[in-house]
Amino acid sequence: MVETSNLKEDYLAYVNKMESYNEALSLIFWDLRTGAPKKGLDRRSDVIGVLSSEVFKMSTSEEMASFLTQLLNKDNLHNLDDVTKASLLESQKNYERNKKIPAKEYQEYVVLSTKAESVWEEAKDKSDFTMLQPLLEQLVDFNKKFIGYWGHEGNKYNTLLDMYEPGVTVEKLDEVFGKLKERIVPLVKKIADSSIQPRTKDLLIQFPKENQRDFSLNILKELDYDFDSGRLDETVHPFSIGLNPGDVRVTTKYDEDDFRTAVFGTIHECGHALYEQNISKDLQGTGLCSGTSMGIHESQSLFYENFVGRHENFWSRHYNTLQGYANGEFDGISLEEFYVAINEAKPSFIRIEADELTYSLHIMIRYELEKELFNDELEVKDLPRAWNEKYESYLGITPSNDAEGVLQDVHWSGGSFGYFPSYALGYMYAAQFKHAMLKDLPNYDELLLEGNLVPVKEWLTTNIHQYGKLKKPLKILKDVTGEELNVQYLIEYLEDKYSNIYQLEK
Amino acid sequence: MVETSNLKEDYLAYVNKMESYNEALSLIFWDLRTGAPKKGLDRRSDVIGVLSSEVFKMSTSEEMASFLTQLLNKDNLHNLDDVTKASLLESQKNYERNKKIPAKEYQEYVVLSTKAESVWEEAKDKSDFTMLQPLLEQLVDFNKKFIGYWGHEGNKYNTLLDMYEPGVTVEKLDEVFGKLKERIVPLVKKIADSSIQPRTKDLLIQFPKENQRDFSLNILKELDYDFDSGRLDETVHPFSIGLNPGDVRVTTKYDEDDFRTAVFGTIHECGHALYEQNISKDLQGTGLCSGTSMGIHESQSLFYENFVGRHENFWSRHYNTLQGYANGEFDGISLEEFYVAINEAKPSFIRIEADELTYSLHIMIRYELEKELFNDELEVKDLPRAWNEKYESYLGITPSNDAEGVLQDVHWSGGSFGYFPSYALGYMYAAQFKHAMLKDLPNYDELLLEGNLVPVKEWLTTNIHQYGKLKKPLKILKDVTGEELNVQYLIEYLEDKYSNIYQLEK
Repeated sequence: MVETSNLKEDYLAYVNKMESYNEALSLIFWDLRTGAPKKGLDRRSDVIGVLSSEVFKMSTSEEMASFLTQLLNKDNLHNLDDVTKASLLESQKNYERNKKIPAKEYQEYVVLSTKAESVWEEAKDKSDFTMLQPLLEQLVDFNKKFIGYWGHEGNKYNTLLDMYEPGVTVEKLDEVFGKLKERIVPLVKKIADSSIQPRTKDLLIQFPKENQRDFSLNILKELDYDFDSGRLDETVHPFSIGLNPGDVRVTTKYDEDDFRTAVFGTIHECGHALYEQNISKDLQGTGLCSGTSMGIHESQSLFYENFVGRHENFWSRHYNTLQGYANGEFDGISLEEFYVAINEAKPSFIRIEADELTYSLHIMIRYELEKELFNDELEVKDLPRAWNEKYESYLGITPSNDAEGVLQDVHWSGGSFGYFPSYALGYMYAAQFKHAMLKDLPNYDELLLEGNLVPVKEWLTTNIHQYGKLKKPLKILKDVTGEELNVQYLIEYLEDKYSNIYQLEK
Repeated sequence: MVETSNLKEDYLAYVNKMESYNEALSLIFWDLRTGAPKKGLDRRSDVIGVLSSEVFKMSTSEEMASFLTQLLNKDNLHNLDDVTKASLLESQKNYERNKKIPAKEYQEYVVLSTKAESVWEEAKDKSDFTMLQPLLEQLVDFNKKFIGYWGHEGNKYNTLLDMYEPGVTVEKLDEVFGKLKERIVPLVKKIADSSIQPRTKDLLIQFPKENQRDFSLNILKELDYDFDSGRLDETVHPFSIGLNPGDVRVTTKYDEDDFRTAVFGTIHECGHALYEQNISKDLQGTGLCSGTSMGIHESQSLFYENFVGRHENFWSRHYNTLQGYANGEFDGISLEEFYVAINEAKPSFIRIEADELTYSLHIMIRYELEKELFNDELEVKDLPRAWNEKYESYLGITPSNDAEGVLQDVHWSGGSFGYFPSYALGYMYAAQFKHAMLKDLPNYDELLLEGNLVPVKEWLTTNIHQYGKLKKPLKILKDVTGEELNVQYLIEYLEDKYSNIYQLEK
């Protein structure tokens, strides 16, 4: 017993050290994107290299191996508390993932993906897929080899999915994406034929940056973002970042020609930030003090962006204020018109500019392509053709070049295969959570009208946020909603919302 | 040979790692003082603890010992380049200093000084020295023990001085302070009897923060501070910090009732920052890429603050602009009157508010008290009495309580004994450098009038900045000025300047 207890303490000190290094790395990351002087970057890259390779080394060290074998065995397991056990299992997963790839190959892979990301930028500028193609082929081959090292259950692509959304499989995704597609595609078509013409273009006025900032700050306060545990800064590609639960920063971008970038971006990032601010502090230093998966994280940002920020009642409350900040430019747009305009649904080429309804279709396309690639049903060289065919089939539009087609996202160039589905899972989780929340907060719509978002945040904290990585995504979903993943809630929400907006017969 | 070369590379990778951790720590430090959310502090302290104890461990590890013994021996020494040799000697010095104190005692000391700093705050608030006295007694005893471990040459206090200003001794300080005192004390008295009445109070107008900021930014540009290698932020206790030569940040404080805080504070910190921005990048990662000593660092900040920022020609050029930013409030104050007012010399109680002339007297008092303490000529309990007597004797004023007397500075509570003299050395070095600079830049005064500060910065870079810690302070002084420390230059500068301002007979 005494021995186990010492070992456990040593293990926790060890992961605490790794987490401390990661916190320093997070601060460096935030700083680089919010105003670090450019001439310091070269040296800062070395610092990042030193710290992150130290964390990697620690995750695969003999010391780590010894903690895992000594603590994760039948004799000791029952002496461990839940947090330590979950922490060890997380460490074990990382250990095995990182250890199974020969160091030399991993090194080559890191170099390759770094190179591919910079080639991607140029290829996208020139809209020339063939520039990226050889590198992408190598990246896919590497990932196929990695799947070989890691092994797989069922579909090979499951192994990649598991890195971002543990427990989610091709079998499950095929089912939910199939149902979603079946209902969304016809809805998108109906909308295209509708006579409703949202006044979206009228929103694109010159909107002073300072006013956008003030409005964003007001909204963050109302969403119960804790400014003693965070701050708002400006950046080029908005993100939020949790250094620890007491320091979770939001960044946003002020586009003076389109206020929506800042407003909806800030609300989205605030959803991520609320998650990280409300993880239990008891998990600090255990390696479990962050969001449990990409999909659950995205469910929180989308919950706020869509169920709060694009809700009619939210704007009943705030539209007047926004009109004020718009210096009279929105005076000719009614609340109703404004609401329709910010919810316009329309097929488009670029994922990150897509609306709530068509977004998932962009994801499905990428999912299907990735699945085909890793099951040898599609070759890298055929990606542009396959991409364009799918855009035609799902969205009824064909990209006119690779820049607005297959080259638009950086993910693949960075070696991130299996990542995209988490975005769509985020939508499904969010809708399923919302359905469960309504049982406890049947007055949800009224709360928005009152600007009382505290009960919403508290519900999410109690049911989701507090657990960090202590619970796996599908366990959280089951515990909160009593069900497995069920896409029906998202479908109903979208059909309901868009039928109303576009006055369709249901 | 091959073996040495591998060893050398391993050693350099090892110190590069320590320097990388220190860069991360510097960023954390900067962030904490420029807007880090307060609820993240507890966890951030753990992160600081993890990183800094790692650096400490590395500096005293067996691996370090082995590098030092293998590389710093007769057979290898001649194979080493100057930078590696200097780096090793610096590492050796740290190793010996850190290793000679028993780990347990050092731990106790760290705890004690942390406690003393917080007790000091309360003691200062209540102006009650007896609260701090027992802790200060322990801190002095610890330092006496450390001197025992470290050994000493000549005066025991030399060992403490050497931590901040290597090579400087009691013997030297007694000499230069003696000469300085002999000339400054009578000058201060003469000034007190002068009929000149500087219009200092008229400067204390309401000065908008935004205007102070704009003016500060203008000045930084003129001083050739590189904004691609730095940034200006707001803080409570201004500082500058070099993360690496490409990232050296300045902070300042905007007091809306006294613009001098920001203007002279920014210029002062800019002097520190120019030093760190212009250290040779070849020294990155060697442990030598920072200022060589407290005193040389202070010489750079004081050079800019006094020889640039308080120079008549600087204000001939900028006073108009400042008047504009002051919204007409300075219109009734002539340039001449303004110049006299920002250079008023007057005995005062608080060191950090003292003027250029009387500042050194505040330092001498602290120096004499420290020297007496560590030579068993003064007991801690007698500090307040001794302090007040010296203020009466040097400055002709007696503090009315401990808060404006012996309790005003945090240094002793933090265990920093031997630190104060570097402030006065900074003045002496600066004046001696200025004297040498005038041989190369005889048109110095004109450059200020033209706002062409580039040659000044370049001279300082060539002669001082570029070397970082590669040269020790007294070696720099000798190489640049051809002399040992010579207080005569400071004396002449002060006598000349203040005789003019107060229209005294020389």
